[in-house]
Amino acid sequence: MIFGAIEAGGTKFVVAVGDEKGQIIERASFKTREPQETMAEVVTFLKKYQADLKGIGVGSFGPIDIRKNSATYGYITHTPKVAWRNYNFVGHLKKEFDVPIAFTTDVNASAFGEVQLGAARDLNSCLYMTIGTGIGCGAIVSGEILTGLSHPEMGHILVRRNGQDRFAGICPSHSDCLEGLASGKAIQKRWGKEGKDLADNDAVWRLEAYYIAQALMNYILILSPERLIIGGGVTKQQPLLSFIRSELKALINGYIELPNLEKYVVLPKLGDDAAITGCLLLANLVKD
Amino acid sequence: MIFGAIEAGGTKFVVAVGDEKGQIIERASFKTREPQETMAEVVTFLKKYQADLKGIGVGSFGPIDIRKNSATYGYITHTPKVAWRNYNFVGHLKKEFDVPIAFTTDVNASAFGEVQLGAARDLNSCLYMTIGTGIGCGAIVSGEILTGLSHPEMGHILVRRNGQDRFAGICPSHSDCLEGLASGKAIQKRWGKEGKDLADNDAVWRLEAYYIAQALMNYILILSPERLIIGGGVTKQQPLLSFIRSELKALINGYIELPNLEKYVVLPKLGDDAAITGCLLLANLVKD
Repeated sequence: MIFGAIEAGGTKFVVAVGDEKGQIIERASFKTREPQETMAEVVTFLKKYQADLKGIGVGSFGPIDIRKNSATYGYITHTPKVAWRNYNFVGHLKKEFDVPIAFTTDVNASAFGEVQLGAARDLNSCLYMTIGTGIGCGAIVSGEILTGLSHPEMGHILVRRNGQDRFAGICPSHSDCLEGLASGKAIQKRWGKEGKDLADNDAVWRLEAYYIAQALMNYILILSPERLIIGGGVTKQQPLLSFIRSELKALINGYIELPNLEKYVVLPKLGDDAAITGCLLLANLVKD
Repeated sequence: MIFGAIEAGGTKFVVAVGDEKGQIIERASFKTREPQETMAEVVTFLKKYQADLKGIGVGSFGPIDIRKNSATYGYITHTPKVAWRNYNFVGHLKKEFDVPIAFTTDVNASAFGEVQLGAARDLNSCLYMTIGTGIGCGAIVSGEILTGLSHPEMGHILVRRNGQDRFAGICPSHSDCLEGLASGKAIQKRWGKEGKDLADNDAVWRLEAYYIAQALMNYILILSPERLIIGGGVTKQQPLLSFIRSELKALINGYIELPNLEKYVVLPKLGDDAAITGCLLLANLVKD
């Protein structure tokens, strides 16, 4: 059985076909341009396998409409990327492929990939956080993607400002929410350089850890995930994860019993393939 | 069919029997004293129905151990109430009654009661928050009680301090977490009077709303519940709920589309019976 997977990111699209075990058979990636251009490339790739394709899983940048009974189900909604605003993602795919389509956020797909085959494989719950240009999270609860009114938007939670930090924040809606203070874009604007060029500046990563650990504390107290998986470009900075663990330990202050933080707050096991793998697995589960 | 229900609170226990629809047949309440005294009263009450009893649901103050595979499953764990610390709640009941026993937190039981028969009856998810002596929350996700590593401890999330508020906070673990700044106990200590004696002091309730709305914003962004239900003694103060809604609207700032806040952030429909009703319904669902 062959399944299709589309990881729709703000800068690039990854498309793949694979089997029901989440093994990738072939993949390609395309720069994110206008929908008609990028989707044409995606469709051409998947058409090669059309005869065998049993389903497609999509993990998209957001916000997206995942409410099955909504008139705009399957759309990307009010994204700052103007060309993709109100784009009927699932509708376009349905015109090309007569197969069931799963539609969720890129971070939900990553969380699902990691709980099925990655760093949370033996568990029923996890949180997947990505710290890149923006900050996003997906969550698995009782083995399933956490869904309610809509998908979570955990990157925008409120954190306490470090008293020394005078940076205003870059979130257009909340200024100094988590994404406003701690996303890759915020790091670049605060320090005048990209994170990768600040690798040896501990002050950058201590401040970053101060904000990320607050977020993790709130995620833990609210969701009680069995594992926290932190991905994204910013996380590749060497000392960050250990700074985050130290801050988190101090914040929780023994109030709840947590597993060893070295094993509890971890990097993705599937690396950059978490989302595309999750999409493949979701394609196998979706019914319509 | 007859089911038993025990709402174990820090100041009183409510015990009831009822039917599979959550209708209460008889109830009693007892002051929370030492375990052997209070549990003897509970057991005597339920024994009257022993011949017909098909299950018991317990919603307890916490923290409690709800991990089925744990050696201390069914225990109240490290509560400040010394006499109840490490008390084997389920074990004691199992000795007296040979029926399946459901064991969860009081706030989870309330959330379950409200999603089954109360303010979130038509929905698959909700958050139930109680603001009383302490602050606690339970959550329903996809129709089931949210459970992960353990039960949530949402009352202890971090909030931003109001710049004018010099009160240190009363949480022994985190000083000025949400419970530290906004619980009934915090209100009493900050203002020198109980909340009920501060009813006409708007400054009290505006500050309270400032903290509670931050918490609700984070709960919404993380859990995406379809409804938020706010119970507990403090919520009985008249202007509080409308102050909370205004603060919440300002904080979210249009970033996500929410239902009308008058219908989205509401009081419990089951009032003070939310937890005991939830316990009855859980008693009907539990298998062992």
